[in-house]
Amino acid sequence: MTRIILDAMGSDNAPKNETEGALVAVRELGIEISLAGPRSVVQAELDKHPGYPISAIQVVDAPQVIAMDEPVAQAIRRKPQSSISVGMQLVQEGKADGFVSAGNTGAIMVIAKMVMKMIGELDRPAVGAVLPTLTGRPALLLDVGANAECKPLHLLQFAIMGDIYARSIMDVKSPQVGLVSIGEEQLKGNELTRETHKLLSQSALQFIGNVEGQGVFSGKADVVVCDGFTGNVILKVSEGLSEMLLKVFQQEFVEKESSVGSGLSLEAFREFRRRFDYEESGGAPLLGIKNVCVICHGRSGQRAIANAIKMAVDLVEKRVPERIGAEMAQLKALAIRD
Amino acid sequence: MTRIILDAMGSDNAPKNETEGALVAVRELGIEISLAGPRSVVQAELDKHPGYPISAIQVVDAPQVIAMDEPVAQAIRRKPQSSISVGMQLVQEGKADGFVSAGNTGAIMVIAKMVMKMIGELDRPAVGAVLPTLTGRPALLLDVGANAECKPLHLLQFAIMGDIYARSIMDVKSPQVGLVSIGEEQLKGNELTRETHKLLSQSALQFIGNVEGQGVFSGKADVVVCDGFTGNVILKVSEGLSEMLLKVFQQEFVEKESSVGSGLSLEAFREFRRRFDYEESGGAPLLGIKNVCVICHGRSGQRAIANAIKMAVDLVEKRVPERIGAEMAQLKALAIRD
Repeated sequence: MTRIILDAMGSDNAPKNETEGALVAVRELGIEISLAGPRSVVQAELDKHPGYPISAIQVVDAPQVIAMDEPVAQAIRRKPQSSISVGMQLVQEGKADGFVSAGNTGAIMVIAKMVMKMIGELDRPAVGAVLPTLTGRPALLLDVGANAECKPLHLLQFAIMGDIYARSIMDVKSPQVGLVSIGEEQLKGNELTRETHKLLSQSALQFIGNVEGQGVFSGKADVVVCDGFTGNVILKVSEGLSEMLLKVFQQEFVEKESSVGSGLSLEAFREFRRRFDYEESGGAPLLGIKNVCVICHGRSGQRAIANAIKMAVDLVEKRVPERIGAEMAQLKALAIRD
Repeated sequence: MTRIILDAMGSDNAPKNETEGALVAVRELGIEISLAGPRSVVQAELDKHPGYPISAIQVVDAPQVIAMDEPVAQAIRRKPQSSISVGMQLVQEGKADGFVSAGNTGAIMVIAKMVMKMIGELDRPAVGAVLPTLTGRPALLLDVGANAECKPLHLLQFAIMGDIYARSIMDVKSPQVGLVSIGEEQLKGNELTRETHKLLSQSALQFIGNVEGQGVFSGKADVVVCDGFTGNVILKVSEGLSEMLLKVFQQEFVEKESSVGSGLSLEAFREFRRRFDYEESGGAPLLGIKNVCVICHGRSGQRAIANAIKMAVDLVEKRVPERIGAEMAQLKALAIRD
């Protein structure tokens, strides 16, 4: 049976949201979950749910907690027994299949590299974000946070990982891969995008060329690659803008007794909002490390936590890290033969 | 009387939208407008509006038209009599006060530098975008397109120009200036943002530090600076995302006879949409050149054209290029004294 380690102390509302998300996930997915965190704190939270499935949810004691804004280097030095480190160690040892956390993203990435290790041929892990598009099918944008300074080879590696993710998890047979730039022509953009354009054109991927900002949400690409600075800005701008639009819309058409005879129900609006709410969307896969790891937003509610756990289960069942490892090894073999 | 040169051949729907926008602008603003383009074409369009104010709208013959996707270097070499070149030349000679175009942005920028010239102390012009925010007050984001590779000094110059724009045009007494980065701490981001953070901290500007993507739309900063690659991506992502949200929203709540009893009127929705529609928002100021120049979206309708003309008139009346020039000269004098 698949077993996921959930960092119980990651979210802004930990361990409540994690515990509730875990209860939803075990019920819906029929898996086992270990909650990592200070035993007494996590057990007390679990005990608020009398009759919880004891066989499916355990507590793994991890006495230390890394704070959301704690400097990463310091956190790692001072807190070897953090819920992140202890949880990842168990996955690395094969005692569990994947790790999920809504905690400090920087710490998660660094500890993942240290404990779960990079896939041999890869230089850097990438954080992917699953975005809604106009077509209704999602697009995977990567990297959205791990790598502020990137080289063209890194973006090619991100594209290969994204392609595997799209085929395995998004059920896209032949994923269309785009490169974020500021013009559709090959020569537009900066040095990084021009060089990356060449590499992607020569690859075996279905490369559709440069994608401008609006193309990210048009759905013409299944996988969109960029450096981590650009990707993180895109993700945060999208969060901020949709939050603003949804808030103003709610004020105008739902809360206000409208003078124009609008009677949009709060329920219908909430349903719409859920589709575009980043708090609700679940997790972001950390790709390029040897084990499954999914990162959630610090504001994640129980539904987002449960969705992230589902993503981790999918990544385990589809053996995504193994497939990335195999593809990278093959590429390396080809390069050596060339 | 203020006279604006409007490139009649810029937009996707030229010269119709330009002509109609000009008619709106002369009526609302009481200014003079010269439409630059092939005389017979533009005059024929004007003649569709019998009784148009002949004293307020003239045609300036510019027989050549630069296409939207034409390579800039080639366009400039082959088309010295383009509507952009001819129009800017008239402004440079003092025969008009400002220039507005919905044409090829790259060509506008390069010809502006050649013909209207940079303000002496500045290295690069910047394109600003006026974005809506949660507070209801707009924010100016720059640069959104001109400079794919930037140095810290360029971003400082953008911030100074943005500050002057916010004080002059947005009526903000003490503009709060933010720097786009991927974390709020000074050390987060890439090399460019870390160095720029230092420069901005030492400046006389009201620098509020790094602003993450969502901060652009929260309204906490009046002026937000970044390199032109990042800014253009932000602008295009915002366009794409709001287009998607508005389209899905319209389908769900306006067009569909909803099963949940929603009866949102198309009229009310259109009003909402206008507030967040990039096609409707008007122009983007090109800052750093000696004359007033405003760039519009290629999809601009007559309202957007009229709004862009209004922005140009404001820039002329508030003497923004002169104020930027004076501030830069003063900064240079201070630097020499140090």
